Amino acid sequence: MTAYFDWAATAPADGEILEESLRISLSCYANPSSVHAEGKKAAELLASARSRAARCLRVPPETLYFTSGGTESDHLPLLALLERPVRGTIAISAIEHPAIVEQAKSLDRLGWKILTIPTDRNGFVTEEAVLATVREDTAYVAVMAVNNETGAIQPVEKIADTLRRRFEGKKKPHFHVDAVQAIGKTTLCVSHPGIDSVAISAHKIRGPRGIGLLYLAHKIEPFIRGGGQESGIRPGTENVAGAEAIARCLEAIDRDRERGNARETMANIIGELTAIPGVSAIPSSRGADDERFSPYVAQFTNSSIPGEVFVRALSDRGVYISTGSACSSKKKTRPVLDSMRIAPDAQRNAFRVSIGFHTDGEEVHSLVNAVRSTLETL
Amino acid sequence: MTAYFDWAATAPADGEILEESLRISLSCYANPSSVHAEGKKAAELLASARSRAARCLRVPPETLYFTSGGTESDHLPLLALLERPVRGTIAISAIEHPAIVEQAKSLDRLGWKILTIPTDRNGFVTEEAVLATVREDTAYVAVMAVNNETGAIQPVEKIADTLRRRFEGKKKPHFHVDAVQAIGKTTLCVSHPGIDSVAISAHKIRGPRGIGLLYLAHKIEPFIRGGGQESGIRPGTENVAGAEAIARCLEAIDRDRERGNARETMANIIGELTAIPGVSAIPSSRGADDERFSPYVAQFTNSSIPGEVFVRALSDRGVYISTGSACSSKKKTRPVLDSMRIAPDAQRNAFRVSIGFHTDGEEVHSLVNAVRSTLETL
Repeated sequence: MTAYFDWAATAPADGEILEESLRISLSCYANPSSVHAEGKKAAELLASARSRAARCLRVPPETLYFTSGGTESDHLPLLALLERPVRGTIAISAIEHPAIVEQAKSLDRLGWKILTIPTDRNGFVTEEAVLATVREDTAYVAVMAVNNETGAIQPVEKIADTLRRRFEGKKKPHFHVDAVQAIGKTTLCVSHPGIDSVAISAHKIRGPRGIGLLYLAHKIEPFIRGGGQESGIRPGTENVAGAEAIARCLEAIDRDRERGNARETMANIIGELTAIPGVSAIPSSRGADDERFSPYVAQFTNSSIPGEVFVRALSDRGVYISTGSACSSKKKTRPVLDSMRIAPDAQRNAFRVSIGFHTDGEEVHSLVNAVRSTLETL
Repeated sequence: MTAYFDWAATAPADGEILEESLRISLSCYANPSSVHAEGKKAAELLASARSRAARCLRVPPETLYFTSGGTESDHLPLLALLERPVRGTIAISAIEHPAIVEQAKSLDRLGWKILTIPTDRNGFVTEEAVLATVREDTAYVAVMAVNNETGAIQPVEKIADTLRRRFEGKKKPHFHVDAVQAIGKTTLCVSHPGIDSVAISAHKIRGPRGIGLLYLAHKIEPFIRGGGQESGIRPGTENVAGAEAIARCLEAIDRDRERGNARETMANIIGELTAIPGVSAIPSSRGADDERFSPYVAQFTNSSIPGEVFVRALSDRGVYISTGSACSSKKKTRPVLDSMRIAPDAQRNAFRVSIGFHTDGEEVHSLVNAVRSTLETL
């Protein structure tokens, strides 16, 4: 019996959706850019996937572009800054994904200056912090919708409103929202006015790797170019099977929106784990049923062993958790926890528990037992 | 009965390979960057796919990086120029894919100057033309291995040798080879000294969309950054199913290398089509069994109707051809044919026939009949 609590790194794919998408795409085998009948058939399937995804996200189909995943969806609006005639500043929150943070550093080396929007001690980016960071020459602002390490839901709609007011009558910075951990899991309104782009990944919602979506409220002048696919926004032969799969994953969420017992499951996990001596939530203010956080992700720490050792010890017991994000697994620093001013010891001993749509009581039981017995047998 | 002659745009995927890859990846469901047992299992599968692909391509595994496809594999070395401390010139052949041509223009807007290496009238880039184009400040040279519109096999190994000699004792330009139409279809030696990077796409060799390979003889300083996957060269959660599929596609080619009757099939096509009044090959010097060209791609023209009308007319008869490349299908200009100084009328009426490993005599018969009767009934 294994228990998987690393859904924020990747969700086990929905085999039925993947197989069905594969089957459909094999029968629509041509290149959607080809003008013959088989090419048109493939193009129609792609258009259908886009329309259905758009319906789920409550946005017009022409605002959605298929990409190769969350990282590329994060990159395209950021790289588009390189088409601007003048350089300025880029304001990114202290808790952004490496896809934003590391790519922004590449732009910094080309003369763009990075401004960091701090979080409060609970890991939230406030509207005030955004206002205090942006400048007249800020061309781009990024605040993710749900932090991938703590689950903290960021007030991105309010930040969008604030930016619109702050830059009224002036050129508003492009506001990008990485919603990889939010789609299907929070009430984020993708089309909220003032949100200029949103990054979405299939494999976090039980789809395949290698496919994502980029929402663009308005078309941008792209820096990344090639064969002109996806209205010039994302070049490369269209991944029809992937597009079909992400549309189906979004539809599956939409159909199951009412189901969700994730909040109850996570409340149990937080309640049970923090009852174990030495274990506490990060931030410590997070209650068992705390609506400021996504119920799908929680960060903890323990007073005994380093997070990485803990992950391995639990793995030996068939329970799969992580420390921070998988994308940062090779790094020693924890910028998200730094931003929350978490003490070095607590950072080193931190671990993440993330759940999925189907995480059940038995798995939670395995997790709680494994954490307790690992710490007891030290 | 339909006949598919648009393999250069995309090859109908091998359903068995795709299904088997999907099945394997579903059982290895975790994120390869996760440190728990399931993450390690996924990482091992990814490593196995890399090793097997490397064996097929006769290169060390650590020189191969999984990407989202040919376009991204073309982009990464080109974009890496943005990490150079000084700007210089970029020399690209007149017949490169839009992934190179259009992306180079983005770099041009950032202060890099583009030099175009012309072709001869037959569509070949000679070593002399490369030498006459490059300058002391040339940081990057791109010449594709097989042109996607004409099938012309470019002397990339000789160009690599020439560049090494020309820049002996100096900083040699990075030499990139787009081998999307060459892998499995020509004798290209990926690891030939002086070839610094090679772009490979799965969907041209019967794999899925959304996965490709980048060969790098030496590691580059990447401009595109994120979670540090693929040794920092290509960020984004690894597409394990895609990696498994491309490895299997390469293995399938390797096993079948001896089979190939493509040369005979294409000789029949060229012989039969050019016997139809008004139809000629582009270049006109191309013989039926002309070893200067890939047997998988041929360009023709006709004296009666525009290529696009012809494509639609043949499509109505169940025969699927194309004009130029699918990636350029929305454009009116034909840079490849321009470079060959093909007359405007012949350009407008040009069409491409591309075949695959399994194109058979019956399909060729359908093609020839459809071309003949379409032109006769005008």
